[in-house]
Amino acid sequence: MSSNTFGKLFSVTTFGESHGPAIGCVVDGCPPGIAIAPEDFVHDLARRATGKSRYTSQRREADEVEILSGVYEGKTTGTPIALLIRNIDARSKDYAEIAGTFRPGHADYTYWQKYGIRDPRGGGRASARETTMRVAAAVIAKKWLKQTFGIEVHGWMAQMDDIVPDMPEGAAIDFAIVEGNPFFWPIAAQLPELESRINALRKAGDSCGARINVVATGVPPGWGEPVYGKLDAELASALMSINAVKGVEIGAGFASVAQKGSGHRDEMRLDGFMSNRAGGILGGISSGQDIVASIALKPTSSIPAPGRSVNAAGEEVEVRTKGRHDPCVGIRATPIAEAMVALVLMDQALRHRAQCGDVRDVRPRIPAHRPKHHT
Amino acid sequence: MSSNTFGKLFSVTTFGESHGPAIGCVVDGCPPGIAIAPEDFVHDLARRATGKSRYTSQRREADEVEILSGVYEGKTTGTPIALLIRNIDARSKDYAEIAGTFRPGHADYTYWQKYGIRDPRGGGRASARETTMRVAAAVIAKKWLKQTFGIEVHGWMAQMDDIVPDMPEGAAIDFAIVEGNPFFWPIAAQLPELESRINALRKAGDSCGARINVVATGVPPGWGEPVYGKLDAELASALMSINAVKGVEIGAGFASVAQKGSGHRDEMRLDGFMSNRAGGILGGISSGQDIVASIALKPTSSIPAPGRSVNAAGEEVEVRTKGRHDPCVGIRATPIAEAMVALVLMDQALRHRAQCGDVRDVRPRIPAHRPKHHT
Amino acid sequence: MSSNTFGKLFSVTTFGESHGPAIGCVVDGCPPGIAIAPEDFVHDLARRATGKSRYTSQRREADEVEILSGVYEGKTTGTPIALLIRNIDARSKDYAEIAGTFRPGHADYTYWQKYGIRDPRGGGRASARETTMRVAAAVIAKKWLKQTFGIEVHGWMAQMDDIVPDMPEGAAIDFAIVEGNPFFWPIAAQLPELESRINALRKAGDSCGARINVVATGVPPGWGEPVYGKLDAELASALMSINAVKGVEIGAGFASVAQKGSGHRDEMRLDGFMSNRAGGILGGISSGQDIVASIALKPTSSIPAPGRSVNAAGEEVEVRTKGRHDPCVGIRATPIAEAMVALVLMDQALRHRAQCGDVRDVRPRIPAHRPKHHT
Amino acid sequence: MSSNTFGKLFSVTTFGESHGPAIGCVVDGCPPGIAIAPEDFVHDLARRATGKSRYTSQRREADEVEILSGVYEGKTTGTPIALLIRNIDARSKDYAEIAGTFRPGHADYTYWQKYGIRDPRGGGRASARETTMRVAAAVIAKKWLKQTFGIEVHGWMAQMDDIVPDMPEGAAIDFAIVEGNPFFWPIAAQLPELESRINALRKAGDSCGARINVVATGVPPGWGEPVYGKLDAELASALMSINAVKGVEIGAGFASVAQKGSGHRDEMRLDGFMSNRAGGILGGISSGQDIVASIALKPTSSIPAPGRSVNAAGEEVEVRTKGRHDPCVGIRATPIAEAMVALVLMDQALRHRAQCGDVRDVRPRIPAHRPKHHT
Repeated sequence: MSSNTFGKLFSVTTFGESHGPAIGCVVDGCPPGIAIAPEDFVHDLARRATGKSRYTSQRREADEVEILSGVYEGKTTGTPIALLIRNIDARSKDYAEIAGTFRPGHADYTYWQKYGIRDPRGGGRASARETTMRVAAAVIAKKWLKQTFGIEVHGWMAQMDDIVPDMPEGAAIDFAIVEGNPFFWPIAAQLPELESRINALRKAGDSCGARINVVATGVPPGWGEPVYGKLDAELASALMSINAVKGVEIGAGFASVAQKGSGHRDEMRLDGFMSNRAGGILGGISSGQDIVASIALKPTSSIPAPGRSVNAAGEEVEVRTKGRHDPCVGIRATPIAEAMVALVLMDQALRHRAQCGDVRDVRPRIPAHRPKHHT
Repeated sequence: MSSNTFGKLFSVTTFGESHGPAIGCVVDGCPPGIAIAPEDFVHDLARRATGKSRYTSQRREADEVEILSGVYEGKTTGTPIALLIRNIDARSKDYAEIAGTFRPGHADYTYWQKYGIRDPRGGGRASARETTMRVAAAVIAKKWLKQTFGIEVHGWMAQMDDIVPDMPEGAAIDFAIVEGNPFFWPIAAQLPELESRINALRKAGDSCGARINVVATGVPPGWGEPVYGKLDAELASALMSINAVKGVEIGAGFASVAQKGSGHRDEMRLDGFMSNRAGGILGGISSGQDIVASIALKPTSSIPAPGRSVNAAGEEVEVRTKGRHDPCVGIRATPIAEAMVALVLMDQALRHRAQCGDVRDVRPRIPAHRPKHHT
Repeated sequence: MSSNTFGKLFSVTTFGESHGPAIGCVVDGCPPGIAIAPEDFVHDLARRATGKSRYTSQRREADEVEILSGVYEGKTTGTPIALLIRNIDARSKDYAEIAGTFRPGHADYTYWQKYGIRDPRGGGRASARETTMRVAAAVIAKKWLKQTFGIEVHGWMAQMDDIVPDMPEGAAIDFAIVEGNPFFWPIAAQLPELESRINALRKAGDSCGARINVVATGVPPGWGEPVYGKLDAELASALMSINAVKGVEIGAGFASVAQKGSGHRDEMRLDGFMSNRAGGILGGISSGQDIVASIALKPTSSIPAPGRSVNAAGEEVEVRTKGRHDPCVGIRATPIAEAMVALVLMDQALRHRAQCGDVRDVRPRIPAHRPKHHT
Repeated sequence: MSSNTFGKLFSVTTFGESHGPAIGCVVDGCPPGIAIAPEDFVHDLARRATGKSRYTSQRREADEVEILSGVYEGKTTGTPIALLIRNIDARSKDYAEIAGTFRPGHADYTYWQKYGIRDPRGGGRASARETTMRVAAAVIAKKWLKQTFGIEVHGWMAQMDDIVPDMPEGAAIDFAIVEGNPFFWPIAAQLPELESRINALRKAGDSCGARINVVATGVPPGWGEPVYGKLDAELASALMSINAVKGVEIGAGFASVAQKGSGHRDEMRLDGFMSNRAGGILGGISSGQDIVASIALKPTSSIPAPGRSVNAAGEEVEVRTKGRHDPCVGIRATPIAEAMVALVLMDQALRHRAQCGDVRDVRPRIPAHRPKHHT
């Protein structure tokens, strides 16, 4: 129920400010018996981390996870798992002069209106630093989903500014390429173009947006709870809750507006679905096809270019954001989006098991349509 | 917590199948003292109803609301308000032959996979008939939001198939026109084009999608709960939970991907915000600007054109959907989308009051940017 | 989350006032495939009903349940089950003169303080009439618990006024006797004493309290969620939420205060627990022993004997409660207490299945101690 | 929703095992602007701590609270407040030999049945060490309740073994005496008797139970949510969730069974209620009178006296509990019980404000009955 808790049964409560002493989370409701060690968190936290390339913020955090509870002799016990990461590279002095100023495009003004008080250092709770713990919690979810159902969740950048991957629609994504570059971009030949775009933006003191796609494979049919706990509704909420996200699509998304019913609906044969415009969800319940979501991230508001604003004293001011910022927040959003999809799936898996029992292999399934656009 | 309940404090639990004896809802947590009578529901239920024009399903339901509890001498008492509507024009025989068949693009297959049993008559619980009670519950929310804060929620159709309103971007919406035609379309001159498009689709046994925009005016700054109960996250969930919705945008939405930070961020002067690309929400909290959302609805899957499918017996079949269906489900979606936005706002209003008290007029506000595109 | 909803996964939302048009409930999260018909509700509703003997209120309600949704061809479908009972024997004129008066020992004053408005007819929402729907919803839970695990839930009256069952401590309860008299009393020879006590109280215009015991047999070990969702904590809440309940005990209850650790703790041998002072719950989790709870119900406050009070106009008044009332509300409380225990067990069963899967027969169990005091 | 979270709006999520690296909690939904510093936690944590007298466990923890988030420049910001306490005096080797053995009266067997795995060191999650964080979280609640409404919550021991306070019923409690002895006992003259009883039990390798009373003064009328979120129902759940509690009473509790309606109901005059047998709650809503609750704690199961049991290998064994334990767990339970009452009141205060707004002083109140039994 509390607003910093995600998930009904696999519940993740996060806490911490960007420049506070630490960030952390408590994962409650986790199935017992899952092997978890600090090393498990390293890979995904590194994918999300700043300071790893020239194209993201230069803040360097070790992101070392301490497991405080819920794991005994290397296995989850079913009790709450608390994870803690100390903040070590916060530079709060960068924020001293904007403590009373509302940066345009930021949560400064709205937090102040809501609470009458805010921690201005690094954006406080509204900072993307918070998403670190989403990624950490999702490591546990990903592990359980993979070993129990063979589910995998993978994302990639599908647009940056006005650049789109140079590939035929529906062509296979090569995740070796995606994971091999800091943009999570699927076409290696375009990397120089992305790099020069970022460099140009940085020079101009500006920023750009991005689109991220996420696909979950191996999800069994039957997950999702109609009518307000629909799988797609919860994915929409989970993804929209990521900092800077302004839009969410499932399957064909906004393209379905101009499609015809005869063309949109995914027909079925015994050897499989013939297409996947639904994005793997019908009536809010998974169909056994790949779950496909796409999100839009707005351009970073924290830019050196001066912006007009006001302050808490009621004066008009000009703001130039200092600090270390990402010229495109979307660059690091891929693991965060994957994390939110994994958390939704984990929670829905437990909820499905609660109401319907373990119905694996009880009913015959129609195979998923495997288009060429992912492998 | 239950999946048929919407809202944490202003909680709406709906029930009922398309062809069952009745549909209904229970509204719990409602503030006491609101004047409510059966007549209050007439207007919005009629806007959502089928059988009102040639362009929607010909099913004709009286949609007469009986108030079973929670209202004494015309006023809400703070106890649960139960609303009941009897189904009177269900024609279940239309569905006899598809009882064992999974219609493509429908929830037939997924409900069967989840539950092992489903009510096939009229789509059962997955039918858009369920949205009637969302609209009914939102009547109470809209009334309280209007009289307490002056908040209004209005929607219109912003695209049908590939037709878009013939108006400059940002021009004012004339809601007298919107409310005067069955499409909720803002430009009267285009109505013949819409009508002929629907007629052509119906003749072809096909259907099309739609885009609906919703704007909430008068929302105070400070509503929304970071980080998982963000106002935009909950709007995304609420809107995606509507039947046939495949995408949700807040403010600039997917257009922000190709925008620059210097252009996207809404700068502020003492006389007001200078733009509203954020759609009235920053960091998950309302800014006092208009809340702006947009959704994509897929084309109706229930079409006479034959589709390939399978049945529960494991045979390949051809499906031709009979029954009375909408050639464009988006046509009636405007009041439903408004309802979901109103329910989210009502719930967040109570949650904000719980944590922060009644802070109206405590802190100085920056006026909203009032673009020309709505009045 | 809403206050008129009970249960996290098997969620029961009740509505309705004592003298409103109807009472009802919505059961959400119910497993699919359970056979349910209107006849299933008859037995337990009759056990709870007024007007069945001279010793309870003479209000006569048919308590005919209409199933409005969630059941198709006689089986639950997994969608919300709405149950409706029309009120037919309300006599609201009995309450006209106390509309502005706060009856001592009643919720009149507190509802008025909370909401500023209240439905005075028959106690409105605060009436025990509401418990009808708890019993109705629990019929579904009892059926599933019985057929899935062999669980049974039985209650009896263990004290009325200062009369206690004339039997050795720990002797077997004969439920044929309990079910054969309107007091749910286990010793037939004492019925005349109970009857004459009630007659004497009625003559004096007064009332008395009661103690009810409930035992659930067949509950597997492992149900209950530490630390705030403990099985005993939820039983305490469920039972205390019943009208007029002022105390709850699990197992030895308050008697444990003067027990020694060596005597209280239930020792274990391979052929079974050697006692059951814990009442079947250790650390908030079921042990596989019988779940044993006991509750205290206060004497009915609605009595003809005059009482001093005040009214909403700020005047001192004398109140003589008219209307048809129970001289001992505890007489009809046995099926209500059973219902709440069943609802807690049902909900915990689903929650356990969610987190831990279906672990039946995975781990060896210690048999329950079967004392002579129940059969 | 998660089982280690307490409270719907003022949500406290606790984590940590008795002998793990740390225990902690996250308080979400806290009103902004409350002054909180590490020093605020010292007093109540010391009252609850072990090792402070000869009559409790000799484990010595510093219980130093680190505030990790949610507080900026000494004030709560409305974001989650994480509190952390490192465990420094855990002696896990005491538990090596009972790792596979189920101690009678403990949660060892039930945790193993539920999860198939458990942390045996010091009782793991089932240890009373967990209650430290309840007390810590309640410090914030107590502070807000005191400064906003003048509410105070005080407890005392009302029975130990078969010893009861030597005072007339209803006589005033002198809290200076209660706070001046390690038993929280109201009569100084009886302290030697309590001490010698504990010494005798310890010598015998045995333990005893206790009864704790708690009173909350200053609670306004109108708090509590019928019908399943009743104030007394939530108090019952909160208090029963404390380790070793086996019974809960509100007001007259089990004594009401043998009371008459004419005697139990609290009559009202304009100058006040004439008694408080209801314990300050009618219909689940506070009446403005003192909230009065009483709990029974069972005798400690961890005693040196040998007990018969079984182990995970399926063998019969004899258990002698080593480690450092309390001969009467009730001795330290007073601050824990106060904490749970404060957390319930805090949560209900916010929930009341959400639904009904800030209605202080809107309606005339009847003064509380101030009996002589507390000051």
